[in-house]
Amino acid sequence: MKTKKPTFDTLYINVRIASMRAGGPDYGLIEDGVMGVTDGRLSFVGSRADYIETHGNAPMDAHAEGTVHDCGGKLALPGFIDCHTHLIFGGNRAREFEMRLSGKSYEEIARAGGGIMSTVTATREATQEDLVKTALPRLKAMTSMGVTTVEIKSGYGLTLDDELKMLRAAIQLESMTGITVLTTLLAAHAIPPEFKDNADGYIDYICAEILPAALKDDLIDAVDAFCENIAFSPEQVRRLFAFSKAEGLDLKLHAEQLSDQGGTELAAEFGALSADHLEYLSERGVEAMAGAGMTAVLLPGAFYTLKETKLPPISALRAAKVPMALATDFNPGSSPVQNIQLIANMGCLLFGLTPEEAIQGITLHAAKALGIDAAKGSLEVGKDADFCLFDAAHPAELIYWTGGIPPTDVIIQGKTLAL
Amino acid sequence: MKTKKPTFDTLYINVRIASMRAGGPDYGLIEDGVMGVTDGRLSFVGSRADYIETHGNAPMDAHAEGTVHDCGGKLALPGFIDCHTHLIFGGNRAREFEMRLSGKSYEEIARAGGGIMSTVTATREATQEDLVKTALPRLKAMTSMGVTTVEIKSGYGLTLDDELKMLRAAIQLESMTGITVLTTLLAAHAIPPEFKDNADGYIDYICAEILPAALKDDLIDAVDAFCENIAFSPEQVRRLFAFSKAEGLDLKLHAEQLSDQGGTELAAEFGALSADHLEYLSERGVEAMAGAGMTAVLLPGAFYTLKETKLPPISALRAAKVPMALATDFNPGSSPVQNIQLIANMGCLLFGLTPEEAIQGITLHAAKALGIDAAKGSLEVGKDADFCLFDAAHPAELIYWTGGIPPTDVIIQGKTLAL
Ligand SMILES: [Zn+2]
Ligand SMILES: [Zn+2]
Repeated sequence: MKTKKPTFDTLYINVRIASMRAGGPDYGLIEDGVMGVTDGRLSFVGSRADYIETHGNAPMDAHAEGTVHDCGGKLALPGFIDCHTHLIFGGNRAREFEMRLSGKSYEEIARAGGGIMSTVTATREATQEDLVKTALPRLKAMTSMGVTTVEIKSGYGLTLDDELKMLRAAIQLESMTGITVLTTLLAAHAIPPEFKDNADGYIDYICAEILPAALKDDLIDAVDAFCENIAFSPEQVRRLFAFSKAEGLDLKLHAEQLSDQGGTELAAEFGALSADHLEYLSERGVEAMAGAGMTAVLLPGAFYTLKETKLPPISALRAAKVPMALATDFNPGSSPVQNIQLIANMGCLLFGLTPEEAIQGITLHAAKALGIDAAKGSLEVGKDADFCLFDAAHPAELIYWTGGIPPTDVIIQGKTLAL
Repeated sequence: MKTKKPTFDTLYINVRIASMRAGGPDYGLIEDGVMGVTDGRLSFVGSRADYIETHGNAPMDAHAEGTVHDCGGKLALPGFIDCHTHLIFGGNRAREFEMRLSGKSYEEIARAGGGIMSTVTATREATQEDLVKTALPRLKAMTSMGVTTVEIKSGYGLTLDDELKMLRAAIQLESMTGITVLTTLLAAHAIPPEFKDNADGYIDYICAEILPAALKDDLIDAVDAFCENIAFSPEQVRRLFAFSKAEGLDLKLHAEQLSDQGGTELAAEFGALSADHLEYLSERGVEAMAGAGMTAVLLPGAFYTLKETKLPPISALRAAKVPMALATDFNPGSSPVQNIQLIANMGCLLFGLTPEEAIQGITLHAAKALGIDAAKGSLEVGKDADFCLFDAAHPAELIYWTGGIPPTDVIIQGKTLAL
């Protein structure tokens, strides 16, 4: 049996690996596993037997040039990916939430200054530093539950300066924490007061001012919009998407949350990465998604918080083999939920996913929703060494214990994060 | 203005107090508050102005003989009381949970060894030390979200020795942690295999063997039973209650969870402290509770986990002025939910309580459900100094942020707990 020179920076041994790779056993499970990390990437993932087969049966702790980490039988899962958040905002809406739950009318809440515009006002008043300061503990709370990659949208600034301020805050968070941050321009989130009754004019402003500036400073990975009666029409989204696609940007869409607008079919037409929410998605929309290879991003936190009753068409999506991701949609109005593992539990109990589908939804399928599945989302050779260790015997336990299990260790690109 | 000699062991100043006292302003709120603690109890609760009025306007930090704790404007709430838990058990039921969510039939799950009897088997196999070891991190997780008092039921032993073992484990947890533990004998939780088709014989055994032994060793504060088609009939509960009441014990009942058995009316007849679950409670049952001064303990975690759709009659309970408590019902089968603040959120979003009702439900009304509201549940002079400090501006924020806010400080009977 040949013995190769060890080439790992770190070797994780005695670990139960839920690799989540597609096409393998349930959860891609490897019982007595070994993971090798080189230059921040996985260079070996397999069973102890496979390791000995390929690397010799010398004691693993003899890899003197690297570090051997005995995981003591803990469970490893890919770092969780929260692929849809509005993490950055000023203020909070606890008072509006309380008024709503106390039976106050929409008018009373609006008169008391509630609604998305209260968040826009507070976000505009905040400096970039203010936004970073309030978002940082939220991001750390997410990571304490296993999130290693997070998508953050703009959309509470709605002016050139305020949208860029939000995006810069998001990028600053990445450099402060080591957590991977993807940024999405969601200037088309709501119609700002400056463009009252002139949504078309605002779309022009986004295309002429905000988007070019964001591109120039390399602030965004994708463009998103809110396609709904109360926001932007499919025709307005079409203009934004045509412009964005010409710039080579990835596309995403808030679609069919409160009514069927046909936004998903439009997004499919443009080859968008994902359509998100989807409670009112039609059979035609499901087919369009399957045809375009899109990912369905399901957001049970908003469904729960808004006390919705119409479920997204899970069975149809499953039958059409559309990958289903789950995300917090963390935001101060409709989904003040930070905990990705609670979202996975809601995916099962509210939307009827299986625990394995729910964990796919916050790993491999979330990576697909962001177009980063070549690098993240499962534990496979060549992908980033982003993973968490848990005191658990089986991945279903993370769903079973409502609210989940905090990981004991969070590793991002091979580096252990201080929790 | 007279100046009294300071008589506080500790004085908490610059604190926003949500005292939760009945009959006061919303949440019993005191904006710029002061709390004095003497011998583990609250000896002053009021505004800074009240304090200066009664104790002089000398600087508060001049109380050299005690300790002055500047809370920096944090929010104080009564320590949360989880008044219905099954915290102690062997094993877990993640596999059964996964089978259920994957659409497996009841028979398949039973064949795979699921159901309450799997927990009974694992609990019987565990030693008292095993039970303490697995329950301790659960209790600490509860306290990390603000719980200072917890009720723990037996009910997975179902033999003399195993029921006593569970109760002793619960009492051991109290002495290990400083958290106040109340113990409830729930031997009448399920019919053990030894008494198959002989529930009456098992009730006799409880009255003749288990209950006297638990009383002799001073292991219990109350007696509970599960009154349901699949458990014990009202007539069987009646015999247990008559025997227990004669021994001077407080009574509680798992009632009307899956069907209307009239258990609540029976409990009212015996002057029970609470009836718990109550999804199928009738108008007659509501009246009986009001007449008997009982507390309704609502358990939205089980409702959520079991995907129930029938809501407890909240409006009728509210109209009849029956105090409503909320509890985790933490257990491995139907409510694997440890987080009392998530339960309070579910109380609002699933059951329609207001945020203030939800916080009453885990403070003052939970104390009523345990018969300890003279000592706990609100921040008032003479009650135990059990409280938590939060980085929050208003108590509704604990409900608004789904999953809640961990307290920065937990104080039990005047002593700060190491978190
Ligand atoms: Zn969103
Ligand atoms: Zn119970």
